Amino acid sequence: MVNETQHTCSASSSSRSDGGSSSGSESSKENSRCSTPVLDTDRHERLREKMRRRQDAGDKWFSLEFFPPRTANAAVNLISRFDRMGAGGPLFIDVTWHPAGDPGSDKETSSMIIANTAVNYCGLETILHMTCCNQTKDDITGHLQKAKRLGLKNIMALRGDPAGEEWEEEVDGFNYAVDLVKHIRNEFDDYFDICVAGYPKGHPEAESYEADLRHLKEKVFAGADFVITQLFFRPETFLKFMKDCQAIGITCPIIPGIFPIQGYHSLRQLVKLSKLEVPQEIKDVIEPIKDNDAAIRNYGVELAVSMCRELLDSGMVHGLHFYTLNREVATTEVLKRLGIWKEDPRRPLPWAVSAHPKRRVEDVRPIFWASRPKSYIYRTQEWDDFPNGRWGNSSSPAFGELKDYYLFYLKSKSPREELLKMWGEELTGEESVFEVFTCYITGEPNRNGYKVTCMPWNDDPLATETNLLKDQLEKVNRRGILTINSQPNINGKPSTDPIVGWGPSGGYVFQKAYLEFFTSSEIVTALLKVLKKYELRVNYHIVNVKGQNITNAPDLQPNAVTWGIFPGREIIQPTVVDPVSFLSWKDEAFALWIEQWAKLYEEESPSRMIIQYIHDNYYLVNLVDNDFPLENCLWQVVEDTFELLN
Amino acid sequence: MVNETQHTCSASSSSRSDGGSSSGSESSKENSRCSTPVLDTDRHERLREKMRRRQDAGDKWFSLEFFPPRTANAAVNLISRFDRMGAGGPLFIDVTWHPAGDPGSDKETSSMIIANTAVNYCGLETILHMTCCNQTKDDITGHLQKAKRLGLKNIMALRGDPAGEEWEEEVDGFNYAVDLVKHIRNEFDDYFDICVAGYPKGHPEAESYEADLRHLKEKVFAGADFVITQLFFRPETFLKFMKDCQAIGITCPIIPGIFPIQGYHSLRQLVKLSKLEVPQEIKDVIEPIKDNDAAIRNYGVELAVSMCRELLDSGMVHGLHFYTLNREVATTEVLKRLGIWKEDPRRPLPWAVSAHPKRRVEDVRPIFWASRPKSYIYRTQEWDDFPNGRWGNSSSPAFGELKDYYLFYLKSKSPREELLKMWGEELTGEESVFEVFTCYITGEPNRNGYKVTCMPWNDDPLATETNLLKDQLEKVNRRGILTINSQPNINGKPSTDPIVGWGPSGGYVFQKAYLEFFTSSEIVTALLKVLKKYELRVNYHIVNVKGQNITNAPDLQPNAVTWGIFPGREIIQPTVVDPVSFLSWKDEAFALWIEQWAKLYEEESPSRMIIQYIHDNYYLVNLVDNDFPLENCLWQVVEDTFELLN
Repeated sequence: MVNETQHTCSASSSSRSDGGSSSGSESSKENSRCSTPVLDTDRHERLREKMRRRQDAGDKWFSLEFFPPRTANAAVNLISRFDRMGAGGPLFIDVTWHPAGDPGSDKETSSMIIANTAVNYCGLETILHMTCCNQTKDDITGHLQKAKRLGLKNIMALRGDPAGEEWEEEVDGFNYAVDLVKHIRNEFDDYFDICVAGYPKGHPEAESYEADLRHLKEKVFAGADFVITQLFFRPETFLKFMKDCQAIGITCPIIPGIFPIQGYHSLRQLVKLSKLEVPQEIKDVIEPIKDNDAAIRNYGVELAVSMCRELLDSGMVHGLHFYTLNREVATTEVLKRLGIWKEDPRRPLPWAVSAHPKRRVEDVRPIFWASRPKSYIYRTQEWDDFPNGRWGNSSSPAFGELKDYYLFYLKSKSPREELLKMWGEELTGEESVFEVFTCYITGEPNRNGYKVTCMPWNDDPLATETNLLKDQLEKVNRRGILTINSQPNINGKPSTDPIVGWGPSGGYVFQKAYLEFFTSSEIVTALLKVLKKYELRVNYHIVNVKGQNITNAPDLQPNAVTWGIFPGREIIQPTVVDPVSFLSWKDEAFALWIEQWAKLYEEESPSRMIIQYIHDNYYLVNLVDNDFPLENCLWQVVEDTFELLN
Repeated sequence: MVNETQHTCSASSSSRSDGGSSSGSESSKENSRCSTPVLDTDRHERLREKMRRRQDAGDKWFSLEFFPPRTANAAVNLISRFDRMGAGGPLFIDVTWHPAGDPGSDKETSSMIIANTAVNYCGLETILHMTCCNQTKDDITGHLQKAKRLGLKNIMALRGDPAGEEWEEEVDGFNYAVDLVKHIRNEFDDYFDICVAGYPKGHPEAESYEADLRHLKEKVFAGADFVITQLFFRPETFLKFMKDCQAIGITCPIIPGIFPIQGYHSLRQLVKLSKLEVPQEIKDVIEPIKDNDAAIRNYGVELAVSMCRELLDSGMVHGLHFYTLNREVATTEVLKRLGIWKEDPRRPLPWAVSAHPKRRVEDVRPIFWASRPKSYIYRTQEWDDFPNGRWGNSSSPAFGELKDYYLFYLKSKSPREELLKMWGEELTGEESVFEVFTCYITGEPNRNGYKVTCMPWNDDPLATETNLLKDQLEKVNRRGILTINSQPNINGKPSTDPIVGWGPSGGYVFQKAYLEFFTSSEIVTALLKVLKKYELRVNYHIVNVKGQNITNAPDLQPNAVTWGIFPGREIIQPTVVDPVSFLSWKDEAFALWIEQWAKLYEEESPSRMIIQYIHDNYYLVNLVDNDFPLENCLWQVVEDTFELLN
């Protein structure tokens, strides 16, 4: 909304008695006996309900605006920014719409695909902008249908820039944002939450400030649920605007758009586009320091913080919308200083939840994708139902094949050169592979002085929880038990535990110890002998790339390895070791050796052949210690295996 | 089979290559990913599979034969005998078919209804006998369809007695048991397991022993799955018969019918009916003691034990079938002395499972019916699906109304006079009701010297588990907190725990503390004040007969109060406190005051009016302490309530 000019000009009036904000009761009735214990109310609410609930609770919130990137690489970076900034707890993010950039297409850089990624893969409540100017009804309906199909539930309805200089109203066309609002309500009833733009200083093209207010009222009365404003430089500008809105009967939430000044040039460009005037007192500060980026950013942060404080203190403002310009530092700092950046260590579930409405009830997943949730979501995107309550036979729909390792949201954040530094420009044998695994676990630099911060199976540094097992993991990786997933046993820790807790407070969480690794057939032979001693206690699955499969799991039943007991609820068992989906995971886990690692090297090169050898000959093993109240015996199993080998 | 004469005469031969015993593989494939964790393999196996599995495991087993009673009262007694003898672990029971007694009708004493009760309400694997002589195809198909609908899965196919003296074969009619076997296989494919009768001495009407063996072979080759024999007096009789069967190619299981002699007259009558001859060595012992019932029974037990031992020691016999004559003592003693009466304190689930095939996956129930499982089964008999995994919204089908408090399988075992002695010939006020509750808890005799061994809400003495709470319960009942259901909290006891354990070994069971009681509105007022202090910890539902309902349960969600963690399985949560079904239970719980208690007294009598007053004015309360790892706080809640009242 910042990097494009929006217009809401005079439009034929519309009569709609209520802002459509009292519906949604049907969906909550429907959920009153839903089959999932609704750990996280958020997952069942629409954006306007969340907004109302936060306001009623006196909870201050924020939201973040991004624009689609220009290149696929920039898209990878933007997605990891979504993940990082998502951790601060925005109520929603929004993605702008660029008519020139083919915004509704399937390109990695389109508004549609970026918004889709934010909802589905990053689990963020997302508003997709959409403009209507110069577009046919069919185009627009097509975009909206696609958005709905992808799981998007919120639209920011805008007019957008007319294409030519000499713009004229089209009869029955989409001339103003209000036409788009009406169209959405006509065609999609109450499905979408609709946001519209407000102009605290009046839209530059409007006849007058008052006329512009009336246009806003039309948009709201046509069915918009809330308003986000254009940026402004003084808090009193917004507060006056808000009062004026209320005076003419606009009662829906109006969210101030905050623009922390981040640099001289970006400010100038913005001012040009939005036709706003920078107040003299700001110019006076900025002009003398215009070549000092850091100084300007510091000033911008100060200014934003003090303006936000004033807004919040007025009692009229409950949420703040930030124009991030796709940058992290300034906005994050403002939010932290305001105390509304809330990195909540507690999680609704142990894994990252998707925000697609059809995944609303999902509360069980196989443990295998714990470090690759986006891949899991991708491979199950065609499912119509998601398991909830228990894994059971809801898993019958097949997993999609994973061939697109280079989809931007599945791709490693690190470029090839960095990966080579971490994983070795040249491998000399299986041992050099063991070393890479060991360095990843310990966090120590490798022999060339580089830290190994990601692995083909895990694009992030070791989880805090896995850190609990660090010493043990280091020891076994050194000897060729190449771990890719593990969790300690937990016997009833409070659900608020900062490391292993999840779910609402007042509950208790439990885990069975889990260990998953690649290893040689020689070690597997010894391991199988050792496992005989642990037959009743340890469940195992051992499989190679060809699918040869050894297991003692009863009747292919899933084994719940993480569960939680909460007040007044049924039991949640969000993670299982499932023998059937393990075989789908196996394909992916083995393929990652080749796709992510071997392919870094020249064909026929010794390094590539080492990885290829491991891929062809190693086994993927998972072990569960069922006796969660006792000390984890899996280390002893591995110890016994090494002993047997000596 | 003992108290009627069966005949298997020569029949036209039939060619059927296999005994139908290799099917059922489809159903086990179907179950390989069933949605319930299959705690109890038994529930998913057909009888012939159970038999084979027990035989393969070298496990000796027994089964019990009963005949339908003559009166409704005798039916009530027989059902409680099923419950008691079911505790010893029979592989199955069977119910004989009396053509003269309208065996396929809906009468309380019909074979069909008794077998139905055994399967559905007592959870016993059951074989229903069926004879075909003098019946039309339609009659028989009708009986079989009804049996199938009621959940019966096994038929003992018999000829039965011809009606007149001058019996003649009907063309295309059912002349022999083999015709019935063929008919069942034609009309019902492999649905039923079929048993047929074998005669170790040859059938009395058969041309010869050899001819009779050939008839048996025909029955087996026509599709019978196993054979139960007529009684015999010497082990060698059976062992020879078995070898002769095998010699002509009968390879299915052949189960010896054991008849412990229980009295002189019953023996004589039996011998007359079955046309068997009692060996001289037995006559020699019995004749001199014929008027001494105890002596004869002792001898019968001795004789049966030694014969059974010889059979089992032969290695050819894996199971023993007992002709109980509907009596308990002798058979139970034989079984105990043989060491195959196995009162397994462990339960597959904390509640009594029904054996109807459509309830195979059922593994969650509301706690309210814990002491009235037959009523729960009755009220949910029309459900097509049963909740499994979690209660969730599978509970949406409505509960049937309970108006038939006098259905024999829902009726109290005690007659009116006994109930009056226990609950008071004359009540003098609410306090005399408190006293009845208190005596039931303590096991002490009431003021008239009678022990209170049952209550309207519980037809059995206090459960062992409830005994853990005895002192506390006594204290609160004395003061008018009239408890009808409770469980202590359990924080991870082994699943093999003799008191609170359930499910397969190697697991851990958990419980949240639960307390359910009737109490006056005065106490409820105080209780509600006290509960405010426990708001986050204790969930409550408080309701009166008019349905006024006070609760703090979130969104009408069920609260799991019993769960178990087992090796290699998902979590089982077999008991929930469910706000929705509580309202159905409420109707039943309040009605029991009137139906079982008030109606013992004359209309308008003071005693009846006291019960009526309680019914009209008291509240039904349930409390759950969610904090299962801490000490149960519900006693403190009650304590605080009394304190507030003082």
